[in-house]
Amino acid sequence: MINAHPLPDMPCPIGALSQYTAQRVRTAGWIHAVRRLGGVTFVILRDGHHMVQVVIKSHPGALRPETVVYVEADVVDEPRAPGGIELHRPTFDVVSEPANPLPLDLSGPRVEAGLPTRLDWAPLALRHPGSREWLRVTARLVQEFRQALSQEDFVEIHTPKLLATATEGGANVFTVDYFGRPAYLAQSPQFYKQMMVGVLGRVFEVGPVFRAEPHDTARHLSQYTSLDVELGFIRDHHTVMDVLARTLRAMLIGARVEAPELDSWPEVPTSIPVIHFSEALEMLSLALGQDLCQEPDLAPAHEAWLGEWAQATHGSDFLFVEGYPMAKRPFYTYPDPKRPEFTLSFDLLFRGQELVTGGQRLHLYQDYVAALASRGLEPESYEGYLMAFKYGMPPHGGFAIGLERLVARLMGFTNIREATLLPRDVKRLVP
Amino acid sequence: MINAHPLPDMPCPIGALSQYTAQRVRTAGWIHAVRRLGGVTFVILRDGHHMVQVVIKSHPGALRPETVVYVEADVVDEPRAPGGIELHRPTFDVVSEPANPLPLDLSGPRVEAGLPTRLDWAPLALRHPGSREWLRVTARLVQEFRQALSQEDFVEIHTPKLLATATEGGANVFTVDYFGRPAYLAQSPQFYKQMMVGVLGRVFEVGPVFRAEPHDTARHLSQYTSLDVELGFIRDHHTVMDVLARTLRAMLIGARVEAPELDSWPEVPTSIPVIHFSEALEMLSLALGQDLCQEPDLAPAHEAWLGEWAQATHGSDFLFVEGYPMAKRPFYTYPDPKRPEFTLSFDLLFRGQELVTGGQRLHLYQDYVAALASRGLEPESYEGYLMAFKYGMPPHGGFAIGLERLVARLMGFTNIREATLLPRDVKRLVP
Repeated sequence: MINAHPLPDMPCPIGALSQYTAQRVRTAGWIHAVRRLGGVTFVILRDGHHMVQVVIKSHPGALRPETVVYVEADVVDEPRAPGGIELHRPTFDVVSEPANPLPLDLSGPRVEAGLPTRLDWAPLALRHPGSREWLRVTARLVQEFRQALSQEDFVEIHTPKLLATATEGGANVFTVDYFGRPAYLAQSPQFYKQMMVGVLGRVFEVGPVFRAEPHDTARHLSQYTSLDVELGFIRDHHTVMDVLARTLRAMLIGARVEAPELDSWPEVPTSIPVIHFSEALEMLSLALGQDLCQEPDLAPAHEAWLGEWAQATHGSDFLFVEGYPMAKRPFYTYPDPKRPEFTLSFDLLFRGQELVTGGQRLHLYQDYVAALASRGLEPESYEGYLMAFKYGMPPHGGFAIGLERLVARLMGFTNIREATLLPRDVKRLVP
Repeated sequence: MINAHPLPDMPCPIGALSQYTAQRVRTAGWIHAVRRLGGVTFVILRDGHHMVQVVIKSHPGALRPETVVYVEADVVDEPRAPGGIELHRPTFDVVSEPANPLPLDLSGPRVEAGLPTRLDWAPLALRHPGSREWLRVTARLVQEFRQALSQEDFVEIHTPKLLATATEGGANVFTVDYFGRPAYLAQSPQFYKQMMVGVLGRVFEVGPVFRAEPHDTARHLSQYTSLDVELGFIRDHHTVMDVLARTLRAMLIGARVEAPELDSWPEVPTSIPVIHFSEALEMLSLALGQDLCQEPDLAPAHEAWLGEWAQATHGSDFLFVEGYPMAKRPFYTYPDPKRPEFTLSFDLLFRGQELVTGGQRLHLYQDYVAALASRGLEPESYEGYLMAFKYGMPPHGGFAIGLERLVARLMGFTNIREATLLPRDVKRLVP
């Protein structure tokens, strides 16, 4: 069971090789592809981040793709090569070879296989340089999200994912056998982030949320990563919208560097246009020639139309729609004091699709008691949550971004699974 | 249901008030305590981060603790006051008042209640300044962890928490009703982080892990936050220990500022002493006058003795014990090529208790097949995991830090629940 292969010192990452031109360096990685041109063999070596071309004048022997090797070679300037360098006069040290023939060809510009196949073989398929870029985009988005918020004194929290009651969504909740009694997987950290506004004032969380979503569609997952924000002492939902715009701007600027060749990368404008829900319906009624003014929500086609309108009128990929009707928002949503059938909530549309939902929440205990009663909900099931409001809470609000959805939209993926590491859905629970 | 109270613009955070001395400023927070001294009333105002003293010459009326107020007042230099400033000539704008009398007194130097009571009332009890400090320590530790690793080209990942098979621990796993079939909550991201070494080379994750731990002790939780790291192309487990030492050093230096008055805050020495497991047993046998050399693991009393030894001999709070026997380590652990009954794994002890576990893993497919067979495990249950090794993996290893355990040790808490936001255990599932 013991590997007889030598374990040399840490090799130089491929991305750092260009600092060592005209020197002999030890690097390492996977054989990505082998190409022969005239009498010369070009081996493309890939590590976790970069690739480099290794030039072999003599016959290289068998170097099968996905073989792991250490390579000692001369680093040579070569402006025509990808990355501006090449490796010459290599000696290869084989660490491990693929045990089976590869089920997928990773050497082309993309992995030529349908999404289900790529998901089945994800530990291999994700190694393709074009198939793993979104993972670094994702990491960078989250890094910028945290940094932007930490600079404004938000504190990161880690909340329970196991709950005693299925309070938030009702349906679509997973049940866990919790030492013989039922518990439920959290569908969001909504209640906890609100509680914690009472403790820390401004909080955020990056964590998994769970939805027992029985529909097998391109946008539903059983687990996704939610970027949650909540803050106290807001003026109204506009304070929340300001925080969201600042945060998203920082995220998109920062993550841009991880996908430099994508040409449709959006910018968050200095001022994102805002339209009231009722105004949106009026515009849509006029434009589409039908009376939509009593609609309780925006249909996807309506969001798409509004996205085009925001682009045409404001040159913006983003549009805030504020004031959604009470009927379609959760019980903790703050009603508009001037028009109580509407709320101080918002959606942020990106190119005509909803990307973020947020708003101001109720903060007075008696308002919660009344809101629960008006929806026929039992206050007893909300005891821990209500405790925060019972002992003094400020006006507060927040928002949640679905990370995989954001990444899919930025990368131009049509199926959210392409932006999800080992997705879970009604049919898929492996690998 | 609509709050008739005015919603003014965003108030100045208490921590920023000292920038506005001799000016009239609008701030906000909770009434933390009210104290009368002679004819003067001192109101302590608390926000999510800081506190300030408000001086009232006339009678203030009823200002009950935990009332949320906006305060307009003059900021006055006062070297004797906490924070160096006071607020004078205040006017108060009450936003919300506690609906019930407070079940806990938050105005003293600590919350005078047992841990179960404080956990039952956590949304309130955590507001106490001394009871929330660990939350900022936690956030800062995680921030430094991520930053240190990102600088070394590690990529953050978010892996599935719902699994098709209970492969890792066997026992202590929670079962989920997954659309009518069983699924299991992840006990660690171990398999996934290894897979992702094949994709990204160096990865980390910060996320919840789940253990159906039936014991009601001071150190067991059903959910905790695991800081997981894994990297490829290591020399051996010493590469992993180097990464851990660097990362932990950055974490402790950074988080120090969030708990400035703790006087037992540790430093990670430039070189953490390392002792081999067998050498540790020899020393213990000699010191304790009993033959321990065939023991398969270290008992807590032995770890404590080693902690004192490290302190006395090396002046170090930290001690690496390497080379634990194969029998007590998971099947993926890399055996010591020179002494195959031992492994290239380690524990990091902090003041005589295990804080981190890590090591080198197997990387050859045939070694995995043999290791599973030797433990009577079915390779079929490990198909997705084994796929990574089937197609070429480098020597790799990693470690995992239990976040709540680390924070409890740093803060001097004897029960891990004091460092856990809303802990979950065999008895507790609320709030």
